[in-house]
Amino acid sequence: MNAPQDKRSFRYVGTRPVRPDGVEKVTGKALYGPDFVAPNMLHGAILRSPHAHARIKSIDLRKAEALPGVKAIVTGADFPTLESLIMAVGESSSDIVHISRNCMAYDKVLYDGHAVAAVAATSGAIARQAIKLIDVEYEVLPHVLDIEEALRADAPVLHEDIFTKGVNPKPDKPSNAALRVEMAKGDLEEGFGKAAVVVSGRYTTEPVHQGYIEPHACVVSWNADGQLQIWTSSQGHFAVRSLTASVLGLSQADIRVTPLEIGGGFGGKTTIYLEPVATLLSRKSGRPVRLAMSRSEVFRASGPAPGAVIDLKMGAAEDGTLVAADIEFKYHAGAYPAITAHSGASSAIAHYKVPNSRVVGWEVLCNRPATKAYRAPGAPQVIFAVECALDELAGKLGIDPVDFRLKNAVRPGDKQFNGMPFGEIGYAECLEAAKAHPHWSAPLGPNQGRGVAGGTWGNYGGPSTAEVSVAEDGSVLVTTGSPDIGGSRASMAIMAAETLQIPYEKIRVTIADTSSIGFSMVTGGSRTTFATGKAVTDAAAEVVEILKERAARTWGVEPSEVDWRDGEAVCLAEGRTDERLPIGRIAGSAPFSGGPISAEAAINPGGYLAGYGVHICDTEVDPETGHVKILRYTAIQDVGQAIHPDYVEGQMQGGAVQGIGWALNEAYLYDKDGRLDNPGFLDYRVPVASDVPMIDTVMIEKANPDHPYGVKGVGEVPIVPPLAAVANAVTHAAGVRMADLPLTPDRVYAALRAAE
Amino acid sequence: MNAPQDKRSFRYVGTRPVRPDGVEKVTGKALYGPDFVAPNMLHGAILRSPHAHARIKSIDLRKAEALPGVKAIVTGADFPTLESLIMAVGESSSDIVHISRNCMAYDKVLYDGHAVAAVAATSGAIARQAIKLIDVEYEVLPHVLDIEEALRADAPVLHEDIFTKGVNPKPDKPSNAALRVEMAKGDLEEGFGKAAVVVSGRYTTEPVHQGYIEPHACVVSWNADGQLQIWTSSQGHFAVRSLTASVLGLSQADIRVTPLEIGGGFGGKTTIYLEPVATLLSRKSGRPVRLAMSRSEVFRASGPAPGAVIDLKMGAAEDGTLVAADIEFKYHAGAYPAITAHSGASSAIAHYKVPNSRVVGWEVLCNRPATKAYRAPGAPQVIFAVECALDELAGKLGIDPVDFRLKNAVRPGDKQFNGMPFGEIGYAECLEAAKAHPHWSAPLGPNQGRGVAGGTWGNYGGPSTAEVSVAEDGSVLVTTGSPDIGGSRASMAIMAAETLQIPYEKIRVTIADTSSIGFSMVTGGSRTTFATGKAVTDAAAEVVEILKERAARTWGVEPSEVDWRDGEAVCLAEGRTDERLPIGRIAGSAPFSGGPISAEAAINPGGYLAGYGVHICDTEVDPETGHVKILRYTAIQDVGQAIHPDYVEGQMQGGAVQGIGWALNEAYLYDKDGRLDNPGFLDYRVPVASDVPMIDTVMIEKANPDHPYGVKGVGEVPIVPPLAAVANAVTHAAGVRMADLPLTPDRVYAALRAAE
Repeated sequence: MNAPQDKRSFRYVGTRPVRPDGVEKVTGKALYGPDFVAPNMLHGAILRSPHAHARIKSIDLRKAEALPGVKAIVTGADFPTLESLIMAVGESSSDIVHISRNCMAYDKVLYDGHAVAAVAATSGAIARQAIKLIDVEYEVLPHVLDIEEALRADAPVLHEDIFTKGVNPKPDKPSNAALRVEMAKGDLEEGFGKAAVVVSGRYTTEPVHQGYIEPHACVVSWNADGQLQIWTSSQGHFAVRSLTASVLGLSQADIRVTPLEIGGGFGGKTTIYLEPVATLLSRKSGRPVRLAMSRSEVFRASGPAPGAVIDLKMGAAEDGTLVAADIEFKYHAGAYPAITAHSGASSAIAHYKVPNSRVVGWEVLCNRPATKAYRAPGAPQVIFAVECALDELAGKLGIDPVDFRLKNAVRPGDKQFNGMPFGEIGYAECLEAAKAHPHWSAPLGPNQGRGVAGGTWGNYGGPSTAEVSVAEDGSVLVTTGSPDIGGSRASMAIMAAETLQIPYEKIRVTIADTSSIGFSMVTGGSRTTFATGKAVTDAAAEVVEILKERAARTWGVEPSEVDWRDGEAVCLAEGRTDERLPIGRIAGSAPFSGGPISAEAAINPGGYLAGYGVHICDTEVDPETGHVKILRYTAIQDVGQAIHPDYVEGQMQGGAVQGIGWALNEAYLYDKDGRLDNPGFLDYRVPVASDVPMIDTVMIEKANPDHPYGVKGVGEVPIVPPLAAVANAVTHAAGVRMADLPLTPDRVYAALRAAE
Repeated sequence: MNAPQDKRSFRYVGTRPVRPDGVEKVTGKALYGPDFVAPNMLHGAILRSPHAHARIKSIDLRKAEALPGVKAIVTGADFPTLESLIMAVGESSSDIVHISRNCMAYDKVLYDGHAVAAVAATSGAIARQAIKLIDVEYEVLPHVLDIEEALRADAPVLHEDIFTKGVNPKPDKPSNAALRVEMAKGDLEEGFGKAAVVVSGRYTTEPVHQGYIEPHACVVSWNADGQLQIWTSSQGHFAVRSLTASVLGLSQADIRVTPLEIGGGFGGKTTIYLEPVATLLSRKSGRPVRLAMSRSEVFRASGPAPGAVIDLKMGAAEDGTLVAADIEFKYHAGAYPAITAHSGASSAIAHYKVPNSRVVGWEVLCNRPATKAYRAPGAPQVIFAVECALDELAGKLGIDPVDFRLKNAVRPGDKQFNGMPFGEIGYAECLEAAKAHPHWSAPLGPNQGRGVAGGTWGNYGGPSTAEVSVAEDGSVLVTTGSPDIGGSRASMAIMAAETLQIPYEKIRVTIADTSSIGFSMVTGGSRTTFATGKAVTDAAAEVVEILKERAARTWGVEPSEVDWRDGEAVCLAEGRTDERLPIGRIAGSAPFSGGPISAEAAINPGGYLAGYGVHICDTEVDPETGHVKILRYTAIQDVGQAIHPDYVEGQMQGGAVQGIGWALNEAYLYDKDGRLDNPGFLDYRVPVASDVPMIDTVMIEKANPDHPYGVKGVGEVPIVPPLAAVANAVTHAAGVRMADLPLTPDRVYAALRAAE
């Protein structure tokens, strides 16, 4: 079903029109999180812990409360406890309390930057002055930042009530190991017994921030009857609604969340930090309250991707067949439990056939900000290790690393871990394209090296609601609940245009608030163009049926005697085949005859497919300084059918650049007291334009047969291969295996000296 | 079909819960038209004509443009002409140009207060200063305010291009008579031949303003690519969208209109005044622009109900049977053509069986603001005359005036003017209730008189779209496109609660913007509770089906084996009848299994029924001063099934009070140059609480069988009877027929003296 149409017949899909929200954004008129204002609004500021780990002994608000202009102060004591939430809403979970405590500490602070109190005042200056007047008495506790140290028996334990999940028997004392996951199949001993070559090693990566340009910000207006409005920038305003409702024990229908434009999220804006705090400040003050993070607050208190320690052993037979993999990785959870280990474990070797394998993942609590999703969460770190190991295996076997991957790559029909066969995936095609690409065979100079790496991400479908309405002049409104991060207004308009067969420019797409459209899951998991796009297509197809029915009524024929072509109803009745009714003519009188022309689709579509990419990277290592220069970079990806190819290429390029930053530069630097030393873009160095060459992209368009326009998710895969592609390239340039990211000049220099 | 349920079985319908938007409104947090702010917003002001009729010879903007802080100035020359609109959008109409010219004069000003230019500046003070610096050179023309004078051959003609419509042959020269309508049946001569008594007379009413508390206001933000956002208070944001698009030649999908709360409309906010002006100012300045009228501007430049001159002759047979009616009424159109005569003609004697009748209506142009709808537009004026004449006929025949009306009242099955039989209307029941009411037989003192009058209004259905969505916690969102003027959030929530069988408080109703919900017609024509309510009910019923289907899937039974009771799925499968799934349990996991639970209905329902009311009024006339005091007032109305009886009673009371104002006090007072002398509530006197007694209400609940909850429109009928009820009461108290409204003390005093 839903077999994708022949690509050549598409009129709008695959074109590259200007995005409908483009002018508004480049002219600065678009309202992002920090831009929104409400009448009579107060400005908030948050007091944050200067300690990595401390007990809050007391908070004295008196001086702050006395400051003229201060209208409300909130501390952790204002938040409902788990017990009171259970009383209020009947059921709740400790996860909710962790989210709550991360928004505002109660008895303990768990990381530098942890919120301790918040003030709303008549100006931002007064609010910032007021938080300095709050006296917090801390009992500083020993802290731990490092994964291995956090697992030591004598490590300071962050949570007395967290016992490792996923281990048997259930542990009898609390631990910083929050979670253990394991995915195993076959027989490792037997597998390694068949190996001609075995490699093993330890790989590490550092926590890295998503680096979205726009800081977190929201405005909340609370009514005295418990209804409230939230204006915020997020990847999912329905998630903001449900999380805020859960944390504060409110009814979801009482909360209306209006999405503002989002200036980047990459997974980091799928949670809440400020909304419950602003809600409580608004409730206390009776006025709307704005809270917005500074850049420093974003770094100190929002969630990065976890750093990792990965221990790995892999073996291959003489012919290059992978026979066994034994992988154990440990991820930072940060201050509260995280679940990235699940996706890390399921992604680690998902792009290869490995008959005997065990992947064990750990989530490790430490005194850092709670980690959050960052594009393909959990996959880049462990796949970095896997793809470096494959590079070593190929080298030992004397097989071309692309050929080696091709030999082991999963293909349609192969069995997934869950036993179900893979659908129309395209990893092999990506590898073939890499092999055929001129980049792969281009000559290299001295101190230069080339790396290749593959990667995968499962992608997702998930629930989405969309509405398509025809205005009286025949222009068309598409409404979704999915924030537009990477140009989804454009892709939704293209798919609607294709279905309705009307010009793209006649369609406008709106991201409606939570009270104006049905539930839609976050824009994440590479799901939006797939799932919301399918909802839009379904609703548009229903609109076509309504239009045909109205035309049939006008003509006095059966709906089956009406076709829809080029935005017009076409009469098929005998002798009347020259009759046409364009959409604008039908729409003009429609509301007052058959009713408004509008259709909604609320779906949770299956049929999504995993994505795959192969990146090739050339680097030059300066032997004098250890500086690594990216000379050339090619990203190849199975993108399904590209709806708007510019944005697909943009996703590939953006992911590659972020991965390059992860590989080369980015890291959180803490002082001895556990205070973040580099909470800003000057010291936390993301790649800028001059750091990277043009990222060449190759889109493999292997359409998804289970999507009306062949869509596969594309947004996350491109951040997976770069870590290993860069590391493999530097390894070949330097002549020494680089296993610890980031590959900063000092590390590379040290490795070069050690190798001499 | 859709037979209303037995009322006794209703759980929520007919209850009186607090309105969900109540707290927000009484605490001042709700955002009305003038409250909204946009970041970087400019403030506008409008220069208005001081002349009733003048040619604009030149407009010199130089001094205003030079004022620091002035960012944009707009005049009529900035508006598209009809020709350019036809070029831009393919077709258009002169109506659109009239709306455009009413927003901003071009070559001529047609009334005192007509907009001539508008300024946007960095503050309201600068904008108001700037408009004083605009030099407009006028050539003052003779003006005309009075209906009869405007029809004279030597009257100044407002529009050289308007020829009377509805007359045959087509006139060869322009005229202030814009429209003639006629509805006739039977044979007048034969009818009057059967009459035992005949009455005739001339009745007059003055133009009256709707008197909404909130002035017109909007904020518009234009993007450089032609997309724009409008925040405005109106009775229909879809009408704002389509009218603004038509006036400016824009695509409707490019305009997103967000409704703000509305502080009263009564028909007067179904059009546009400020939106195109603010759009052009925003386009020129590149910034959001707010325009808001002052009270004086509302009176001078927004549309009142027309005043009227009604000539009437009616006859009845000896037994009280009406045999003939010959009615000609002339309504002010104001400065531009209006269409109130249509509804006036179709309402005039629609509540009586009159076998031989002719009703002729005229729309007469004059140098006053263009008239607009005001509750039952066109009906109160002509029915005032009819109900006074019935009073006289009853008196002459010696029949009780209620009995007389009962004898002639239309009843179910009687033929309407169009030949179709009346449905389940309830005029006779209202009259029976009046007769039985203690008010009708209470004793009267000296100088006191009692009047009774009936009235009707056709009501309407019209297109509406509604969406019902279930949040993950089982709370419910209802979304409509119908502004909530009289408490429709409450009535929508009640109907959804009844259908879903969940508590009213778990349901929140949102009025979504034009880009977030399908088309809905204005809140007007007493249509919203009927038509939007049916859309909500249809969508909620579909949600129940989805919920049952999800429960069936959970239980592994057929959907037909699931019932829905008390907000829970109930298993009907044998042996499992104790199984229940409440809405919250189904909703929690629903999006991620079957998809979001959401349904939409876009309908144009038939089955609406005309409304009828009977009002009884006691007055006391002070013989020394002519002052009229309302002693007692009872409003009886067939309201169908009252969804929220408080709001139905409120409509009845509000309409009665407005009608009393129309009857006793309200009038536009112009000076000799045609300038409005009383543009404010101090001098334009609407009744205040101390002017009226408690308005007693009697709701006749004769359910509409074609609505799921029996709804009939209730909002307009109550303004129809008061004019005659008051006039008849004063007539009986004074002993002399009062035929000219308003019955100000000077008029009553003069009538008393003349009668002596």
